[in-house]
Amino acid sequence: MQVAMDAAGLTGFLAREFGQVAEDFAVEAVGAAGITLRLRVAERHLRPGGTVSGPAIFGLVDVAMYLAILSRIGPIALAVTTNASVDFMRKPVAGRDLLGEARLLKLGRSLAVGDVLVFSEGAAEPVARASLTYSIPPAAR
Amino acid sequence: MQVAMDAAGLTGFLAREFGQVAEDFAVEAVGAAGITLRLRVAERHLRPGGTVSGPAIFGLVDVAMYLAILSRIGPIALAVTTNASVDFMRKPVAGRDLLGEARLLKLGRSLAVGDVLVFSEGAAEPVARASLTYSIPPAAR
Amino acid sequence: MQVAMDAAGLTGFLAREFGQVAEDFAVEAVGAAGITLRLRVAERHLRPGGTVSGPAIFGLVDVAMYLAILSRIGPIALAVTTNASVDFMRKPVAGRDLLGEARLLKLGRSLAVGDVLVFSEGAAEPVARASLTYSIPPAAR
Amino acid sequence: MQVAMDAAGLTGFLAREFGQVAEDFAVEAVGAAGITLRLRVAERHLRPGGTVSGPAIFGLVDVAMYLAILSRIGPIALAVTTNASVDFMRKPVAGRDLLGEARLLKLGRSLAVGDVLVFSEGAAEPVARASLTYSIPPAAR
Repeated sequence: MQVAMDAAGLTGFLAREFGQVAEDFAVEAVGAAGITLRLRVAERHLRPGGTVSGPAIFGLVDVAMYLAILSRIGPIALAVTTNASVDFMRKPVAGRDLLGEARLLKLGRSLAVGDVLVFSEGAAEPVARASLTYSIPPAAR
Repeated sequence: MQVAMDAAGLTGFLAREFGQVAEDFAVEAVGAAGITLRLRVAERHLRPGGTVSGPAIFGLVDVAMYLAILSRIGPIALAVTTNASVDFMRKPVAGRDLLGEARLLKLGRSLAVGDVLVFSEGAAEPVARASLTYSIPPAAR
Repeated sequence: MQVAMDAAGLTGFLAREFGQVAEDFAVEAVGAAGITLRLRVAERHLRPGGTVSGPAIFGLVDVAMYLAILSRIGPIALAVTTNASVDFMRKPVAGRDLLGEARLLKLGRSLAVGDVLVFSEGAAEPVARASLTYSIPPAAR
Repeated sequence: MQVAMDAAGLTGFLAREFGQVAEDFAVEAVGAAGITLRLRVAERHLRPGGTVSGPAIFGLVDVAMYLAILSRIGPIALAVTTNASVDFMRKPVAGRDLLGEARLLKLGRSLAVGDVLVFSEGAAEPVARASLTYSIPPAAR
């Protein structure tokens, strides 16, 4: 499928529309199948023991899927998460960023569905797996 | 079933073990069926437009279920979320705290399962619904 | 909220539209909050050891939520399941029917969300818990 | 990783342990990353309009993940599904078998996690996506 926004476009969109969290993330790659998003892990994302918190991982998979949708339909600030199901499988490696690989499985008239695998940078086995559904408002299509 | 920790006990545990987020939450009620946890909504929990962010709602349901489990098994800092599935159903009411009503459905030897309904304070219809599974380490039982 | 179809109406709908499975089910109760549906457990629903199979439990929660939606919007054969998340928590009691208690949490313009608790008849602790999302076609509203 | 049971081994296991449903399925491929399982779609799997029923798709993803686990740990009849989350994305193509591609993401001491993509044979876009968690009893490891 066609890409409507590339990495620079998505980065700019994030800075304009989600200024509070934009610095947490970096768009690493945008392709036909999906995108890769980096969470720049900082002190505020950690729980006792140095683990990345559940909410921080949730933020990563949610933003990664959002940007994967925008990479196809263009800069529309209105898609809304309706469901997110996350399996937490392994502890993140301490001191490493997380990479979320988002894959768009359906881009329908009103719903988009995809999944995200989360890895500690450089690790082979995933930290988490998420599937997300977004509702796309009629005006956006 | 029996309650092993009451509201004061859970509040103290949260302050000791999760100091970074403890001020976000207040334990409202602890009963045989589960607990009610308040998210004191502040600027840092909001997205553009004044909506409470997905990660903040995720944090609420995750901590609510964690405390619901501890209210039964006592102050053990080791239970780990293995799955969380969240349905986002309505926009939170602007300027209101969120209340998470956690219900424990299973407390097994190695897994605990429950769900959480999230309401804007004073509203009748839920903002979100979540189900969560926690793994309980052998030593904890 | 108002009930658009009662137990007799739902039973008739099931017989007309889903003749193959209608005899598996009995509508036990219809109320403002949701419905209760019985799975008449028979040989064909069992796995080795006498456990009710996963697909049979899935069928129960899916039909229960479907009928809970119809009880509100009337006899429309078009709502489609978009997501179902099921937690299997306990073994069903051998030789007992299963009861699914479906609760409608949101009935929006295009999406309906609810959850179902499944019990072996007469047991206090749930066998399974499910949350389901249905897409409602524009024509249906 | 190593494969403990190949396609013939899994097929034999299915016939011995799950005789009632064994004829519904055919193991198409077994590899290091997971397995592919065919649902031989027959009249009994269909809903009005010729669509494959939700329970039949549930059965496919559940058995596919079960066999993916066994392909690694050998013929143990005891692993139990604890969670299954299914996104139904497109109508199956009429008159075609379904293929479930199961991928094992974690094989831990007590939990196994994976996901399954379901396709109508010959179609490029998935009908459904599922993630499943299995509990592995201590004796099995």
